[in-house]
Amino acid sequence: MKRLTGTTQEIAKRLYEEQLELAKDNRDVEAVVRDILEAVKEGGDEALRAYSRQFDQIDVADLAVSQAVIDEAFKAIDPAVLGALERAKANIESYHRLQLEKGFEDQPSKGVIRGQLIRPIERVGVYVPGGTAAYPSSVLMNVIPAKIAGVKEIIMITPPQKEYVPAILVAAKLSGVDKIYQVGGAQGIAALAYGTQTIPKVDKITGPGNIYVATAKKLVFGQVGIDMVAGPSEIGVIADQSARPDYVAADLLSQAEHDVLARAILVTNSASLAEAVEGEIEHQLQLLPREAIARASIENNWRIILTDSVESMFELMNLVAPEHLEIAMDDAYDYLDKVENAGSIFLGHFTSEPIGDYYAGTNHVLPTTATSRFSSALGVHDFIKRIQYTQYDKAAILAAEQDITSLAYAEGLQAHAKAIEVRNDNN
Amino acid sequence: MKRLTGTTQEIAKRLYEEQLELAKDNRDVEAVVRDILEAVKEGGDEALRAYSRQFDQIDVADLAVSQAVIDEAFKAIDPAVLGALERAKANIESYHRLQLEKGFEDQPSKGVIRGQLIRPIERVGVYVPGGTAAYPSSVLMNVIPAKIAGVKEIIMITPPQKEYVPAILVAAKLSGVDKIYQVGGAQGIAALAYGTQTIPKVDKITGPGNIYVATAKKLVFGQVGIDMVAGPSEIGVIADQSARPDYVAADLLSQAEHDVLARAILVTNSASLAEAVEGEIEHQLQLLPREAIARASIENNWRIILTDSVESMFELMNLVAPEHLEIAMDDAYDYLDKVENAGSIFLGHFTSEPIGDYYAGTNHVLPTTATSRFSSALGVHDFIKRIQYTQYDKAAILAAEQDITSLAYAEGLQAHAKAIEVRNDNN
Repeated sequence: MKRLTGTTQEIAKRLYEEQLELAKDNRDVEAVVRDILEAVKEGGDEALRAYSRQFDQIDVADLAVSQAVIDEAFKAIDPAVLGALERAKANIESYHRLQLEKGFEDQPSKGVIRGQLIRPIERVGVYVPGGTAAYPSSVLMNVIPAKIAGVKEIIMITPPQKEYVPAILVAAKLSGVDKIYQVGGAQGIAALAYGTQTIPKVDKITGPGNIYVATAKKLVFGQVGIDMVAGPSEIGVIADQSARPDYVAADLLSQAEHDVLARAILVTNSASLAEAVEGEIEHQLQLLPREAIARASIENNWRIILTDSVESMFELMNLVAPEHLEIAMDDAYDYLDKVENAGSIFLGHFTSEPIGDYYAGTNHVLPTTATSRFSSALGVHDFIKRIQYTQYDKAAILAAEQDITSLAYAEGLQAHAKAIEVRNDNN
Repeated sequence: MKRLTGTTQEIAKRLYEEQLELAKDNRDVEAVVRDILEAVKEGGDEALRAYSRQFDQIDVADLAVSQAVIDEAFKAIDPAVLGALERAKANIESYHRLQLEKGFEDQPSKGVIRGQLIRPIERVGVYVPGGTAAYPSSVLMNVIPAKIAGVKEIIMITPPQKEYVPAILVAAKLSGVDKIYQVGGAQGIAALAYGTQTIPKVDKITGPGNIYVATAKKLVFGQVGIDMVAGPSEIGVIADQSARPDYVAADLLSQAEHDVLARAILVTNSASLAEAVEGEIEHQLQLLPREAIARASIENNWRIILTDSVESMFELMNLVAPEHLEIAMDDAYDYLDKVENAGSIFLGHFTSEPIGDYYAGTNHVLPTTATSRFSSALGVHDFIKRIQYTQYDKAAILAAEQDITSLAYAEGLQAHAKAIEVRNDNN
């Protein structure tokens, strides 16, 4: 776990460059993905079936996952997991309901009405990876905000599998997915973007995926909306001498097990804490089944920074703009005001980051690679549109005529001016 | 002006394909832009000056536009235009203030706090084109929402010019720009994205530009936020027999003068209105200084669709998802409920679309090419971040332990489970 020293600005710059490097993907998949998108646009369902034979080695008769398979999943699921999913769902719902926005209207002057409508996106597609990256918690996190926003139809796609993870199908039904199709990869994204005979075209696509899925999402963006293209997961921890080294180490490790590219940054004003955390990491690491992944992540991408004040811990962390931010201090809540950039904040010694991954109700789809400087956790706001409206009566437009035409003529747009003038009977 | 017939779905599909075609840009500028981005990243201010000599034929001594030049602009501006800008500014401010969001906090159970902070983006860059596309109204529309959101620093860049349009500089100062730099094109976007010795790196870039600017924005997206990449302007008009053909024609023409690619779609249930509008267009067109542009736009991209009911007019227009939507009906306000997709709506016979371009206070930076299906007008929401936070005390995490660890083990993420378990002294 590398220690960094220098001024706050120097360290921040270095951390940012390292983060960009981690997020970089050099594999040249764009050409391959373009071909797949084109083939699905032309070939529809038949192209999807051909790709499933080629990539998944499965012959998909019916693209829709049948009700029988879903019923089976409800029978097969561990009751403890089902109960946990139900309670997580309730928490995610109650949190996201707080994000619901209302439209507004005002009458700034006589004869003038202005307002903003809130409308849900009509149809949303959610991508759910197969294999070991199939996380039921991610299904809840993507689907529930869309449902609460009022999206009329939610389509889920997932790569065809001989046997589905029951919790994935159960999470889909619990959270309100309307239809599940078995198709993965770039071909699945193409199906959602363009529609096929069986799969309806959606207005927005969300959900994580591998580099082919991510590239396909980037390429269809504009024709459909997309959520974000996430980089490797990161956690930033601000800890002072009140922090428990074993807690901090355990939380850092929960990030490390995701991926060899996962990143953890510990900023502390306590040299003894830094040392104790390093000792704890080595100790706990040996007990982890995913030790190899975690060890690679730690050796390559973890950083410890010692600062001399609470002020500078926050200053640095705001420049880092981490996806997850833990504040491991006794009076953590009082420092909320100091946070300018982060995806999701975990306050105090007991709010371990996995609480947010699974349970508290906040979303776990978060901005990575310092993009929390300008973007936010997935939420209800990602599934609505704000539509402006205006109404002027005749007297109101005549009162505004001079100003509007002055500006239109100043910009050389005569037809804009004339559209106002034609409403004045005296012209 | 081409008439389209067919079922609503067929017409909508055809209109969408035509729109995509208009938005397509085949010029291969990406390689050129990549080189410019790289050169500015390496060369900083010197690279900017070299590009200004090459592209703008201007030797830029000081990258910042001086206070003396700005003072000059206030002296040179037409007082009528200044007054109009001030009143437009007041309207834009009062509308966008209605968009301000508040954070929230709840305590869903004992020992648990969840909330959402609203934080402004720290530093924003606004691109303002030079030459004939330099619109002071666009300066107001980009800067004011950022200012109201609480953005701390707003940087404007614009191509170096021998003489600046006074209204551009005045609009910048009126709306709260902190600093103006004279640099345009892809090199200007690079400066905002990476920073140079003189120009600070920003967190988000907004504002319109040519294909080089648009491509540069797409390429730096991820390292900075961007607003949107807009296609050609469009207007959709829903009109019944109560509409005045001369008003409708004038409004359609105000779009047509923008660009030969501009698009207008008239949907009406009145055959006589359709005919009368066509006659009016021909009549008014001959009076326009920008007749040639407007005529090309009309001949290539305008469409009239006759439907048999009010219901089907709205159904079709929701599929079109126009940037601007006029409802030219006596009782237009009553039909707001029927609108699902549009950037900005103009209600009734007197709310001519240019009112929104300049004056009413709603934003004129709007989603084009049917992207209003999933995105919205530029607004305060584009300049804030929503940061989640959570706090669990010890009793709360112990109460949740079983559920969280069930889910973590089900997903094969043992370190996630252990981060919870380490907080339980009985483990």
